[in-house]
Amino acid sequence: MANYQAPINDIQFLLHDWLKITEHYKKYGFEEAADEELINAILEEGAKFSQEVLAPINQSGDEQGCQIDGHEVTTPSGFKEAYQQYCDNGWPALTSDPEFGGQGLPYSLSTVLGEMVSSANMSWGMYPGLSQGVIEALHAHGSKEQKQLYLPNLVSGQWTGTMCLTEPHCGSDLGILRTKAEPNENGTYAISGTKIFISAGEHDLTENIIHLVLARLPDAPEGTRGISLFIVPKFKVDDNGVTDQRNPVFCGSIEHKMGIKASATAVLNFDEAEGVLIGEPNKGLNYMFTMMNAARLGTAQQGQALAESSYQGALAYAKDRLQMRALSGAKAPDKAADPIIVHPDVRRMLLTQKAFAEGNRALAYYTATLVDTELKAEGERKEKALKELSFLTPICKAFMTETGHEATNLGMQVLGGHGYISEWGMEQYARDVRISQIYEGTNGIQALDLLGRKILMDKLHTLRRIQKKMKYFLKDAQQDKQLKPLASDLKTLIRKWFMLTLTVARKAGKDREEVGAAAFDYLMYSGYIYLGFIWLQLAYAARNKDADSDLAKSKLATCQFYFQRILPRVKTHAAAIKSGADNLMEIDERLF
Amino acid sequence: MANYQAPINDIQFLLHDWLKITEHYKKYGFEEAADEELINAILEEGAKFSQEVLAPINQSGDEQGCQIDGHEVTTPSGFKEAYQQYCDNGWPALTSDPEFGGQGLPYSLSTVLGEMVSSANMSWGMYPGLSQGVIEALHAHGSKEQKQLYLPNLVSGQWTGTMCLTEPHCGSDLGILRTKAEPNENGTYAISGTKIFISAGEHDLTENIIHLVLARLPDAPEGTRGISLFIVPKFKVDDNGVTDQRNPVFCGSIEHKMGIKASATAVLNFDEAEGVLIGEPNKGLNYMFTMMNAARLGTAQQGQALAESSYQGALAYAKDRLQMRALSGAKAPDKAADPIIVHPDVRRMLLTQKAFAEGNRALAYYTATLVDTELKAEGERKEKALKELSFLTPICKAFMTETGHEATNLGMQVLGGHGYISEWGMEQYARDVRISQIYEGTNGIQALDLLGRKILMDKLHTLRRIQKKMKYFLKDAQQDKQLKPLASDLKTLIRKWFMLTLTVARKAGKDREEVGAAAFDYLMYSGYIYLGFIWLQLAYAARNKDADSDLAKSKLATCQFYFQRILPRVKTHAAAIKSGADNLMEIDERLF
Repeated sequence: MANYQAPINDIQFLLHDWLKITEHYKKYGFEEAADEELINAILEEGAKFSQEVLAPINQSGDEQGCQIDGHEVTTPSGFKEAYQQYCDNGWPALTSDPEFGGQGLPYSLSTVLGEMVSSANMSWGMYPGLSQGVIEALHAHGSKEQKQLYLPNLVSGQWTGTMCLTEPHCGSDLGILRTKAEPNENGTYAISGTKIFISAGEHDLTENIIHLVLARLPDAPEGTRGISLFIVPKFKVDDNGVTDQRNPVFCGSIEHKMGIKASATAVLNFDEAEGVLIGEPNKGLNYMFTMMNAARLGTAQQGQALAESSYQGALAYAKDRLQMRALSGAKAPDKAADPIIVHPDVRRMLLTQKAFAEGNRALAYYTATLVDTELKAEGERKEKALKELSFLTPICKAFMTETGHEATNLGMQVLGGHGYISEWGMEQYARDVRISQIYEGTNGIQALDLLGRKILMDKLHTLRRIQKKMKYFLKDAQQDKQLKPLASDLKTLIRKWFMLTLTVARKAGKDREEVGAAAFDYLMYSGYIYLGFIWLQLAYAARNKDADSDLAKSKLATCQFYFQRILPRVKTHAAAIKSGADNLMEIDERLF
Repeated sequence: MANYQAPINDIQFLLHDWLKITEHYKKYGFEEAADEELINAILEEGAKFSQEVLAPINQSGDEQGCQIDGHEVTTPSGFKEAYQQYCDNGWPALTSDPEFGGQGLPYSLSTVLGEMVSSANMSWGMYPGLSQGVIEALHAHGSKEQKQLYLPNLVSGQWTGTMCLTEPHCGSDLGILRTKAEPNENGTYAISGTKIFISAGEHDLTENIIHLVLARLPDAPEGTRGISLFIVPKFKVDDNGVTDQRNPVFCGSIEHKMGIKASATAVLNFDEAEGVLIGEPNKGLNYMFTMMNAARLGTAQQGQALAESSYQGALAYAKDRLQMRALSGAKAPDKAADPIIVHPDVRRMLLTQKAFAEGNRALAYYTATLVDTELKAEGERKEKALKELSFLTPICKAFMTETGHEATNLGMQVLGGHGYISEWGMEQYARDVRISQIYEGTNGIQALDLLGRKILMDKLHTLRRIQKKMKYFLKDAQQDKQLKPLASDLKTLIRKWFMLTLTVARKAGKDREEVGAAAFDYLMYSGYIYLGFIWLQLAYAARNKDADSDLAKSKLATCQFYFQRILPRVKTHAAAIKSGADNLMEIDERLF
């Protein structure tokens, strides 16, 4: 069975040596967090909790799943106790506003913790994970009274929250949602409708659950401009906290799914449930995006986190399992066969996993620092951080989950038949991570967001700025003899990326379908190039610190592997993009 | 829920219009099968059985799985009845020797039937599927007495069979297997050891199970040259058929797996079980290859078959599900939104599925005709068919299962959240098909077989001959204006394929690790080119019949899609191959 160990060394390298995180924290007023010892202590506590509390209930959670009895949902053994311990340790409050009981630490620290939690137990991590989005949305858009009523118990973890968007007939297309909100005489609203796919929608971890619900007011405009956001608690809340008045929002069933079986995915029936409006009417979708952007980064991280878990499992097996001799002669002649890590094809799979697990970790952490900046900076600096964050969010969400899916499947493949057997834990990673390509906006939706909204509507401004940053770094990288050829490859690719974007923009001007036809390949193309930029930075930072260290050698070798064996995938994506929309659109529906 | 319909029209197009199958049958002495009406009648019966009997118990089989009680295994509801009906219809005997009760029909017909069975219910198909390999191995290598004793009941389906190769410490590396065979005084052998991952190793479908077991005789040479093959029935067999004497081969447990949960994967403990030797001592692995080659084609077909099932499910959903408007304007203005098949990215996914499901079907059927030829032809023609078959077998096994995995995952993605929910059936296809990349020799092993044995050890002879055949066809294809540019692309690629092979051969001469480092990418590279050749033939054949038909338009559009959006993947694989072994082998094990 897999035995997760938090990759503390790599995390510390990224935070301290690559991101210079304490300087970053100082710059943006996180004085308290700007302390390497404090950071390392948090990391160690998080690692301990993930390894010792969460990882041991990951496989049993998958086997047991959640159970429903009437409207009540029971989580698997140990989930409630683990959640209590998580709250006792103060983790839910890590990044929240001290005014409501939070610790006010930077978002990027919660990203690091989030990785460990997802690696150890992705299903469990969904319960506190969803609450974070609710806290952020309430913090940003709730009234003073709403904040005071709901935030303290969410921040302490005493309550959890949900995002209620999807309905049976609409997921990606929220414009056609039907849940109704009728005004009551007391200023509240009666919410009626059915929401599906609600993660953490019902469970036994906490005494109350705070649902944020998208619904339509009477006479609201059609489409996305007529959607409002409501707070609908499971048990009604008054100034003294939770009451015993059950709101009529009941879990009708929970889904049987491919994976994340220990995460309750609820169908919620709202039958004139009492809700209060957040902010202004008909602005609900905008408010929900506050949650969704954070949730997309959280989802991205699940892709990366499970790549890490799977890599650890596959690596341990590959060092241990004896099977056949190396083609160039026995490497362990005293044994019956060589450990399979001697075989080049096994190394190809392991290095692919490593390149994605470590590279995407760096990408996730860097992106998290943009969230810090966006939250704390002012003026142009804030604006720039927001733009870059908006650009990178769909790339992170789709690229990290696509490659996470690939990595977990490679992990299974390294184990051969044992990879397919549940006992070994490797197939669970592949099943669990698969949802990350789908929820929080399918990867197809992310691709449209990147190419349509973040590139074309932005008139390539942010793209240009990011490319400029890349080229600026390449000047340094080219000073390193080992990195020079890679830097030169990347430079060429950056130019090609820009030219390709121009080509797509030109075509899109004539035919809007060209955007959709290019989008997915364009996102993956951009992701591979951006990860090349990340890998070059990692190799550079490690070599800059101590080129003879094992860390530097490992980063250099993985960087070279990435540039030589993974990055060439851009050729395929470029060809697909250039091929245009006709090969997709001309075929009549009936000829499929 | 998915609702499988056998693609009879496409199958008939392939058999009759493309492969001219009745001429092929005539040529090789399958007089009886050389009758279009008979073939179509068999297809329709097979379709009916698959759709009406097997498909309805696919999802329930996955939910129930197999159960073990003591040493006895129970298959899911309906499996036994379906098996009985299968035998009553005479399907197990389809291709077997009439001397033992078979119908003597060509292997290629069983391939067509096999596709339908796997599409409808992959798990169920494993039980009769394994028997076919046992029948072939006994027919080829058993003594006259052994054939008379075992074949009639295997051919009728009254008994099933297994292949017992893998042990806990060895799968790919059978050279180190430990199961022992000690001679008894009566000429039989006492077989002792543990075999794992034995598909259909224990079940309740039949009164007896015939295990073919690899084991070592005392003083056998080490490695693969010291392995012998034994027949070990569950219940001992005498001239009157099965006796009530239970042989001490007991199922210790069945595996919990990612998928094919209704297929019992047994741990079998042999405790001095009585076995008889097949053929000569120490030739067991050679004999087993008779089964394994057929099993590899069967596995390849599972990849294709589940791509088809998943494509059907995704296509039906994409035509039905309304979500958002086409970027170029509403296509179904009378509805709340457009069906998602209007979106280019959905079409990209569907066409990728279609290209693999239909293209790989053609590849499987063509390869099956080589088996017909190899079985029936004589002299040079037999030898040539065998060479081509040996060349294509690892490509079919690995390429069709890799792309099958991709296709089933795209099918899930088309359904969005519903793709992840078990109820819809789409995630089961992805879980079930995943084993096909692993068993019957992992795809990494297939890649070594192709590049090491079938290309380099063959001194590129077969590769050259196949390429010559391709170029010969291209002359025809170039006469068709629509196909001319594609034919020209393929011609270039064929040349590149050859040059790349020379490059690898040259490198491999200096460093054997280069073979392993190139193998997987080389196999995929070859697979994409070969499938390009297949697609061009399909478009050509359909257009040749009637260029204005829907079939011809559909094949042409899919062929163009394949050439423009899928075939460019060879660029990535070529770059990886050319990058050589250093980026995999130089990194020290401890730096992973």
